[in-house]
Amino acid sequence: MASMASLFIRTPNPSHSFLQTQKTQFDTHLKFSISFHSHKGIKKNHQKLRISSGLIEPDGGNLVELFVKESEKDEKKKEAMLIPRIKLSRIDLQWLHVLSEGWASPLRGFMREAEFLQTLHFGSLRLDDGSVVNMSVPIVLAIDDLQKQRIGESTQVALIDRDGNAVAILSNIEIYKHNKEERIARTWGTTAPGLPYVEEAITHAGNWLIGGDLEVIEPIKYSDGLDRFRLSPAELREEFTRRNADAVFAFQLRNPVHNGHALLMTDTRRRLLDMGYKNPVLLLHPLGGYTKADDVPLNWRMKQHEKVLEDGILDPETTVVAIFPSPMHYAGPTEVQWHAKARINAGANFYIVGRDPAGMSHPVEKRDLYDADHGKKVLRMAPGLERLNILPFKVAAYDKTQSKMAFFDPSRPQDFVFISGTKMRTLARNRENPPDGFMCPGGWKVLVEYYDSLVSSQNGVIPETVPA
Amino acid sequence: MASMASLFIRTPNPSHSFLQTQKTQFDTHLKFSISFHSHKGIKKNHQKLRISSGLIEPDGGNLVELFVKESEKDEKKKEAMLIPRIKLSRIDLQWLHVLSEGWASPLRGFMREAEFLQTLHFGSLRLDDGSVVNMSVPIVLAIDDLQKQRIGESTQVALIDRDGNAVAILSNIEIYKHNKEERIARTWGTTAPGLPYVEEAITHAGNWLIGGDLEVIEPIKYSDGLDRFRLSPAELREEFTRRNADAVFAFQLRNPVHNGHALLMTDTRRRLLDMGYKNPVLLLHPLGGYTKADDVPLNWRMKQHEKVLEDGILDPETTVVAIFPSPMHYAGPTEVQWHAKARINAGANFYIVGRDPAGMSHPVEKRDLYDADHGKKVLRMAPGLERLNILPFKVAAYDKTQSKMAFFDPSRPQDFVFISGTKMRTLARNRENPPDGFMCPGGWKVLVEYYDSLVSSQNGVIPETVPA
Repeated sequence: MASMASLFIRTPNPSHSFLQTQKTQFDTHLKFSISFHSHKGIKKNHQKLRISSGLIEPDGGNLVELFVKESEKDEKKKEAMLIPRIKLSRIDLQWLHVLSEGWASPLRGFMREAEFLQTLHFGSLRLDDGSVVNMSVPIVLAIDDLQKQRIGESTQVALIDRDGNAVAILSNIEIYKHNKEERIARTWGTTAPGLPYVEEAITHAGNWLIGGDLEVIEPIKYSDGLDRFRLSPAELREEFTRRNADAVFAFQLRNPVHNGHALLMTDTRRRLLDMGYKNPVLLLHPLGGYTKADDVPLNWRMKQHEKVLEDGILDPETTVVAIFPSPMHYAGPTEVQWHAKARINAGANFYIVGRDPAGMSHPVEKRDLYDADHGKKVLRMAPGLERLNILPFKVAAYDKTQSKMAFFDPSRPQDFVFISGTKMRTLARNRENPPDGFMCPGGWKVLVEYYDSLVSSQNGVIPETVPA
Repeated sequence: MASMASLFIRTPNPSHSFLQTQKTQFDTHLKFSISFHSHKGIKKNHQKLRISSGLIEPDGGNLVELFVKESEKDEKKKEAMLIPRIKLSRIDLQWLHVLSEGWASPLRGFMREAEFLQTLHFGSLRLDDGSVVNMSVPIVLAIDDLQKQRIGESTQVALIDRDGNAVAILSNIEIYKHNKEERIARTWGTTAPGLPYVEEAITHAGNWLIGGDLEVIEPIKYSDGLDRFRLSPAELREEFTRRNADAVFAFQLRNPVHNGHALLMTDTRRRLLDMGYKNPVLLLHPLGGYTKADDVPLNWRMKQHEKVLEDGILDPETTVVAIFPSPMHYAGPTEVQWHAKARINAGANFYIVGRDPAGMSHPVEKRDLYDADHGKKVLRMAPGLERLNILPFKVAAYDKTQSKMAFFDPSRPQDFVFISGTKMRTLARNRENPPDGFMCPGGWKVLVEYYDSLVSSQNGVIPETVPA
């Protein structure tokens, strides 16, 4: 446990258990000690934390944080009692989390129509000064006819969590049509039935979208023992600065880590050192929001990561482990841009991209939904990502001659075995072992336990993938 | 006849009949007297024509023309005999026409994958110097498995017209997958069956796309009596310069012109004069490529335009009538960008945009496919179109109190009747008359004759919409 904790940050209370549900002081401490901006554009610096001038600038120049000041909380809570209320879904709350911490900087709230259209058509937003930032995935809030009617002429709404608490106020609202078909077609490049995010968050959503300026009263917490890994972009930037990082390379993942990943990350650091960087730091950044039912849930993935990290494969001094709070779209080349852009805001100037990032099987046809190379290609051409260095994934495979994961050598293909995510999951589900050296035994055991837990406790019914 | 001819250009042979099929000297004369670039990037100025420095610059800085020099034609024809051949469809030839004259500048041929992906994802292309040009519609050439196999390792192919003549050579080719579903979804924002362009040009097309550098041996001619209206961007620029235009405003249309259109165009010129321009010139620019079966075909539209123009509603001195050779996608907000961008290349710095440009009914659902305002909104935000002044269409309707088309006055809605394109077509099909003052009687008569011709000569079967 301690080994993993030390990997990501020196917390004021390192003895906390990895999966404990008790809220740490750590988050609260940092959350209110960063510079932030109110929706009025007032900038205020607090205490000790600043954005390092050595890190890549956030999109739009400033990291947008949308929390109301501690001193104004009570007032805002009262305000929220007097205006129309919109109850948020689990995924809405995840997007609220994303927006509140500035992962989508310079977005200041759920998208209005001008932002929505630019996202769908151009994968980017043009700012008032004429500059362009990447924004490939719509971050929108759907409401239905009845909610629209209740809002009436109000210019503000209160956003309510599942327990009925007002977590935010959305101001200067704009309500516009939610053309689901067009949104889906332009985001996924298909309208085939069975896209997980679509079925979870769009099909049954309302026919209107509501955009506006967000003021977040209560930071989103999940109380699942993992909140302390949910570092905001400002917190990550602070950590990178504290470590004197002169390069930050981000590795997005939503699957268990195997030794091929580890090899890649270690090798990337070596390449950056070769390029002349003195202290490249890895942001190992599992996605924490909505994932599809057959993905390994976040809590099990974090357990697995912990075991892998305990093995000492990655250097604690140069690795930060944190959770990226975004939900997953599985929108391939469109979505990988969002994954990359959000990491710029967290201070990363290098982004590792693999085969078929954010891809999946076509929901209807027998093929992958996206061309495996399109993600990488699109990322390199994407407007607003010119500042980011894209590092294409080298293909790692199991080298039978060395009994370990190694970079694929095309001169001796017969020596290599490719173990796909699907293959890995099938082995674990069947309690079979992968080849020695594919994954550390402790990490593998977690995976087997996870699949066992599905069978034993739930009669094989696949549970919700993210703890509520 | 003469009145229309004088509207567009002073031809060396103004006595030619409007619809004659004889090839005029005019086209040939101009075609080889403009500056053009070979595929090697060599720039050569011919004779008297130049791009006026007073007109808006073409995208990428230079108007790309892809014709081989007269002196190299024979050599290229021989070359074309020795390489694999691809037979082009009618729509392929229209795109070849578009590319050859530089409407899609700086594109130098059918798109390679990098251009295709940028078009689908970003509606724009990033050039080597980092600048961005708009490019919203894929201009691609599909081939099937057998054609791909025949091409083999060749780096060049000959493009063949329907009569078996080699019209162009495509060099440095790149063959990549034609993911039709993704192309359709990202271009139209729907994959519903029944999209006209899709059914005509995509559904049965091959599963590969071939891109490369184009060298056009034979300029595309249609021999339908309308070729002399098919002015290239260079020819249009020359004409605007000759007229000392200090502003050029383009009006794209694919429907019969009524007096509401005429009012709008006259009013636009007045507004431009009020803005301080001394000589704004109108480019009245009907689309001449593929249109859907229930649109009025080009030859009938041109007849109708002629009658309307004979009425003297538009000033011949300040109006240029020409045919825009592009096929029609009916892709709404995506396509309107192409319509606008192509007109920049022809020298227009103002673009008139109406309700629901390039829109149509949803092929399956009972609604319009696109939000009527999205075209205008997207156009104003589109990357690469910042230089173009967008002039939103004022709504014209039939004012019963004046018995003429007038701008809608929201203070007295009861006085106005809206006559949609569908309504207009239904009236003409039923041989009914529209209200007096909606369209000049001569123009209306052409429409009625067109619908009569469908019934009488073809038993109501709707013919091909563009003469082959």
